[in-house]
Amino acid sequence: MPYPDASLEAIDTICNNAWMAFHEFRLMSLKRRADFMRAIARRLDNADAALLKTAMEETHLPEARLRSEKTRTVFQLTSYAAACERGAWLDARIDTTHTDKNTVIPDLRKTLTPLGPVVVFGASNFPFAYSTAGGDTACAFAAGCPVIVKGHPAHAATSQMVADIILEAARETNMPEHVFAHVHGSSFEVGKALVEHPRVKAVGFTGSFAGGKQLWDWANARPEPIPVFSEMGSINPVFLFPEKLKNATKEIAEMYAASVTTSVGQFCTNPGLIVGVESKELDQFIELLGEGIAQTPPAAMLHPGIAKAYAEKRQTALSQQSVTEVAESRNTSEGAQGIATIATAPASAFLSNPVLHQEVFGPYSIVVRCADLTEMHLLVLKLEGQLTASLMATEQDILHNPALVESIKNIAGRFIMNGVPTGVTVALSMQHGGPFPATTDSRFSAVGADGIKRFARPVCYQGWPDSLLPDELKNANPLGIWRTVNDVLTREAIQ
Amino acid sequence: MPYPDASLEAIDTICNNAWMAFHEFRLMSLKRRADFMRAIARRLDNADAALLKTAMEETHLPEARLRSEKTRTVFQLTSYAAACERGAWLDARIDTTHTDKNTVIPDLRKTLTPLGPVVVFGASNFPFAYSTAGGDTACAFAAGCPVIVKGHPAHAATSQMVADIILEAARETNMPEHVFAHVHGSSFEVGKALVEHPRVKAVGFTGSFAGGKQLWDWANARPEPIPVFSEMGSINPVFLFPEKLKNATKEIAEMYAASVTTSVGQFCTNPGLIVGVESKELDQFIELLGEGIAQTPPAAMLHPGIAKAYAEKRQTALSQQSVTEVAESRNTSEGAQGIATIATAPASAFLSNPVLHQEVFGPYSIVVRCADLTEMHLLVLKLEGQLTASLMATEQDILHNPALVESIKNIAGRFIMNGVPTGVTVALSMQHGGPFPATTDSRFSAVGADGIKRFARPVCYQGWPDSLLPDELKNANPLGIWRTVNDVLTREAIQ
Repeated sequence: MPYPDASLEAIDTICNNAWMAFHEFRLMSLKRRADFMRAIARRLDNADAALLKTAMEETHLPEARLRSEKTRTVFQLTSYAAACERGAWLDARIDTTHTDKNTVIPDLRKTLTPLGPVVVFGASNFPFAYSTAGGDTACAFAAGCPVIVKGHPAHAATSQMVADIILEAARETNMPEHVFAHVHGSSFEVGKALVEHPRVKAVGFTGSFAGGKQLWDWANARPEPIPVFSEMGSINPVFLFPEKLKNATKEIAEMYAASVTTSVGQFCTNPGLIVGVESKELDQFIELLGEGIAQTPPAAMLHPGIAKAYAEKRQTALSQQSVTEVAESRNTSEGAQGIATIATAPASAFLSNPVLHQEVFGPYSIVVRCADLTEMHLLVLKLEGQLTASLMATEQDILHNPALVESIKNIAGRFIMNGVPTGVTVALSMQHGGPFPATTDSRFSAVGADGIKRFARPVCYQGWPDSLLPDELKNANPLGIWRTVNDVLTREAIQ
Repeated sequence: MPYPDASLEAIDTICNNAWMAFHEFRLMSLKRRADFMRAIARRLDNADAALLKTAMEETHLPEARLRSEKTRTVFQLTSYAAACERGAWLDARIDTTHTDKNTVIPDLRKTLTPLGPVVVFGASNFPFAYSTAGGDTACAFAAGCPVIVKGHPAHAATSQMVADIILEAARETNMPEHVFAHVHGSSFEVGKALVEHPRVKAVGFTGSFAGGKQLWDWANARPEPIPVFSEMGSINPVFLFPEKLKNATKEIAEMYAASVTTSVGQFCTNPGLIVGVESKELDQFIELLGEGIAQTPPAAMLHPGIAKAYAEKRQTALSQQSVTEVAESRNTSEGAQGIATIATAPASAFLSNPVLHQEVFGPYSIVVRCADLTEMHLLVLKLEGQLTASLMATEQDILHNPALVESIKNIAGRFIMNGVPTGVTVALSMQHGGPFPATTDSRFSAVGADGIKRFARPVCYQGWPDSLLPDELKNANPLGIWRTVNDVLTREAIQ
């Protein structure tokens, strides 16, 4: 074991150090935070072949995928740095003093202030983009929070290399010592000690339901509970509407075969459930999708734990009553990992069996057949919260079924028309967070610069002289940011 | 007992009805929601003397105070309605489709969608502004959520009268049936059944720590946990800095005597802790404050439960080691309620005794004497989260003590200079929410139109044709709201 678990003493020291760093780091200007993030991005962008080689060895992901994930991570860091500097995320509000019916109303100015040290638990399936220097870390830095990353044991060496890059960037940009720390831990005690430490003020997590819910429970049981944003995946249902399915059976089947199997299905946005109405087009769709799946060879998964869980959950799902296997990867050798699989079941089986609602993390999907759109609506009302929901529909399909469409929207964070849920664009308009159990708080997003808001809270300055206010609230608006002044959005200075 | 507790069957029906109403209400335009809120405001504004008479009888609050609270409630409803219609709270973001290195990036558009039925638990100390048609109800309606109010048993008749006004306004503006419901309940079972009902999706609460924390625990133990915003009060510390205290001993003492005793101290922003540095000015301040307190007659409190709790907590606080009573209401008769009281203790006693950190809800405050500003800083670092923290300070006091000032800011939601914490302006810049235990989530506010965001979550539309998007996301921007389009804030239409 090259990376022993951090001791409880070490964790205590690290958390206390992060707290000390917090006092300095939160006073740093938006520009300095952004410069730090850009320095991380630059170093990560320039990181040499050794980093990719290590990541390939640890994750079994192909080089092209890892390279593009690294590029994405660099983009996250630079685009969140730009958003941090632009300052719109501070939601600055100013209500100037005035007199109302002989009462003097005080001057009130609101901005955001960081919560404190944030612990980040990275994902096994994204060693760069949702790990050490990933989205949660970038958002926390932008908010002004020191970060403690617990490296994922499945890619501990990769995580350590990225951590070293962050530490170098911190030195280069004269950040406070201990603005970042990295710990290793395979046992749950490490995670528990981090989440329960009184100096830790928020948690970001990407991974399984069991893991994310456990962190959330620990955080809520603290004497001082803290916010935990756990992104725990989902089955990302896809709904096939009749007219569309008739018009585009083959295209949809091809699109979904690719979406289900990309990266051996190891995405939290992998579509694990496809719902259609009994018809000859649906039969044809199932056949075509099965053909696509059969042509997909099995492939090594991220780590043995995930491969084992996939094999077991796949087997459990296939063995449920009324579930029929449609197709799986052809010519599978003994002991192969990540066997692509499509199953099917009638809606009645899905409605009565919660096992079929569970995520099978990997290249697996079930096609559920409804008698009609009324039964599809019943099924939607039984579904848990989801990161995404997709409609394959024509405009007429939508216009003829407004209640069904609304019900689908109501369970998801991202609502996709005629597209696949895989592929999460990094943009301000992205929402990566849905109703429980997709995430622990549907009001926040793990992707896009709005994710910064998970780690900051509003503070209102009442009656302060201009010279003592933080820059974003000063009359002259020296940062040139958008502010809501007396209910009007403006970039103008206050006279 | 004129208002029996709602039965569990009745609660089940009410929650299911609210869920049905949700499907319709959430589709209503911002304007229709605002019209509904304005209709409630108009009817409340016109409500005749009977309502005030009932409220006076139930709460023992004087007519002038209740009248101004009713006016405040009307203002909350109309100003949140205006904010709802203005639409800035939707944080609409649009990233139009484009091609990046041969990859088509889909069109992404994000808005907010309501969480679902909200249960509101009103405050005993604000029968109008933080009760039945109060801030939480107004925010939930603006967000598009049906509301179920559990009337506070201490003013059940007032609550019922306001509930009837809301129901009339709902009928007048053709809202969905069951968009609002009102239940009575003195036992904890009513609250528990409401919070645990699967159709309830969020909770707003204003009251005691014990009550707010209990609701939060129940909500988190649900199979599907839901957000609870509990505003649980605090001791609202006031820090006396040396130069300011020397310059304005008398003014500060008078200001604080009034702030501590207004409405018999029954405000969640009542300053229960004043911290200064040992000096002859501090002695003089304590003497003057004691004189002001002695001149304040005792007064009936909101209800017998609060009066009893105040008497007990006051006695407990006064009996702690090293605590000395400075003054109390003069000429107090046997059995008087709400005896105004000032005590004092050295910082060492406060630092070592958590009992002294607890809120004594009523006209009570303790003046804690520190040896120097270093000891004041130690005390700040030991304090729990607060709704507010106030500094009595000159600019030099601030400039000479940056670390201490930052530490004070770090524990509070509202940060006041040379003012008192009582008096919570209803404005977008207000923050009424602080780190735990002041509230259960410091990232939200119970006052001001930003409070709407407690009850809505982002949803991202990916790849939708313009005609099927909600109005706030359509190219033409028919609502004329501010939107962030490709990272630029604008009210322009998209070409």
